[in-house]
Amino acid sequence: MHPFELPIRVIYADTDAMGIVYHANYIKWFETGRTELMRSLGISWSEMEPLQCYFPVSKLSCHYLLPARYDDLLILKTHVDKLKRASISFSYSLYDEGKERVLVRGSTLHACTDEKGRIIRIPEVIHSRIKEKHGEGENAWHEG
Amino acid sequence: MHPFELPIRVIYADTDAMGIVYHANYIKWFETGRTELMRSLGISWSEMEPLQCYFPVSKLSCHYLLPARYDDLLILKTHVDKLKRASISFSYSLYDEGKERVLVRGSTLHACTDEKGRIIRIPEVIHSRIKEKHGEGENAWHEG
Amino acid sequence: MHPFELPIRVIYADTDAMGIVYHANYIKWFETGRTELMRSLGISWSEMEPLQCYFPVSKLSCHYLLPARYDDLLILKTHVDKLKRASISFSYSLYDEGKERVLVRGSTLHACTDEKGRIIRIPEVIHSRIKEKHGEGENAWHEG
Amino acid sequence: MHPFELPIRVIYADTDAMGIVYHANYIKWFETGRTELMRSLGISWSEMEPLQCYFPVSKLSCHYLLPARYDDLLILKTHVDKLKRASISFSYSLYDEGKERVLVRGSTLHACTDEKGRIIRIPEVIHSRIKEKHGEGENAWHEG
Repeated sequence: MHPFELPIRVIYADTDAMGIVYHANYIKWFETGRTELMRSLGISWSEMEPLQCYFPVSKLSCHYLLPARYDDLLILKTHVDKLKRASISFSYSLYDEGKERVLVRGSTLHACTDEKGRIIRIPEVIHSRIKEKHGEGENAWHEG
Repeated sequence: MHPFELPIRVIYADTDAMGIVYHANYIKWFETGRTELMRSLGISWSEMEPLQCYFPVSKLSCHYLLPARYDDLLILKTHVDKLKRASISFSYSLYDEGKERVLVRGSTLHACTDEKGRIIRIPEVIHSRIKEKHGEGENAWHEG
Repeated sequence: MHPFELPIRVIYADTDAMGIVYHANYIKWFETGRTELMRSLGISWSEMEPLQCYFPVSKLSCHYLLPARYDDLLILKTHVDKLKRASISFSYSLYDEGKERVLVRGSTLHACTDEKGRIIRIPEVIHSRIKEKHGEGENAWHEG
Repeated sequence: MHPFELPIRVIYADTDAMGIVYHANYIKWFETGRTELMRSLGISWSEMEPLQCYFPVSKLSCHYLLPARYDDLLILKTHVDKLKRASISFSYSLYDEGKERVLVRGSTLHACTDEKGRIIRIPEVIHSRIKEKHGEGENAWHEG
């Protein structure tokens, strides 16, 4: 129910000549956020690989509210937004170190696919583990 | 009125272990798309720098319809979606080489800011050049 | 015999908060340089894929002499440095727009491998095409 | 004297369509390695910023021995290789999770510069802190 929290330290590689984090670089952090959230539920790649299931990004949105800068320590909160039979969506809120201000909000929608990219049902063992902890999402978690 | 077209060749750096272009890497191509569209209107960085105006990304959305793969030749069409006093939005459609299928659609919203990140009006010389060619956007261009 | 020339426009994605191109981002341009050099010899991925041969980077070196900056137009010259039975090396010189100053020099060594990463001989059809145009490298080309 | 150890989890963003980590992506990890080593000595950006000193990369070399793959947990060991009056070099060894095999070795040389990129002496407060812990490098640490 609680969002998964991940600390992130901004390095030069993440920034651009405007002196702020380049907008596309937040998107990689979202990947780490959802992967570690899943791992915290016992769903890591070593579980998914034999099931031949993948979760490519189908939709992405991002709202940049305040800039992050070089060497900032940030906190990324990730939570399951909505769990369906063949898809899952995540929401992301990136905070400053003190968790007082949201810098960036984002969301991603993922279809579950087989190795050839065909949409399949989320394998039961994965679906149930997410549902157990996060419910079906939507109303399961609120920023407040 | 016509969208700006940019050819893109996919390199290994753009792809991931799923064998497809990593979702965040399309976002960089959008930057090149809008920058070259602007340059085609006579608005390059050498024009903007003395005006001290910047167009950081405020919102981003992306819809991934079909995967692009290593060594694919792609065509990115960029157009001005909406021109306002202090903001501009762009739309992007990424096609396969034959321009028969849309692989990815995206859009970005940009506030116009000064060097310190404060929102300012788009300088008249820039605003008028975009308006002249693209109108105020919205109904100015249709994919059809 | 002549190096392959590639124009590169620096975008924000390439730069960092020091206001210059981030050192690791030149490395991607090297990939484009050697891929397009090979394509100019008639060796593209569509040729290599049925032969199941790959050229992963085995060694890399880079010397940063002068910084490149946002919106700079750069010229990357790539040439075959040395062609062996199971490996090939390339050299890279990145120039400013006027080709007066070298900003970055680099080199990469590539083993030829099969799909499983085992070192194999470079397929004859590829080896001969490179040799025909570039010799065995080394003394075949000089910056002067 | 001991190298600084940093755990790294490989995400899709780091990999390419060969199914391995893309060679340029290791270079960003080196940045994190040396930044965190410096932070462990009490030298963080908040110390360096008022001193107006920067350490841009002047030379880089990298030797790729074995591939890293998606979701691998890696250990990066970073150490000060050589400390001079106006430059510092670092060495990097990237290990597998069990620290049994070296996957990648690298090194970077950094000039110390002022805000305009002119080479300056490393400020005494920084130089002495590195020297105290790491000596002048070179013979201070051995992989064994």
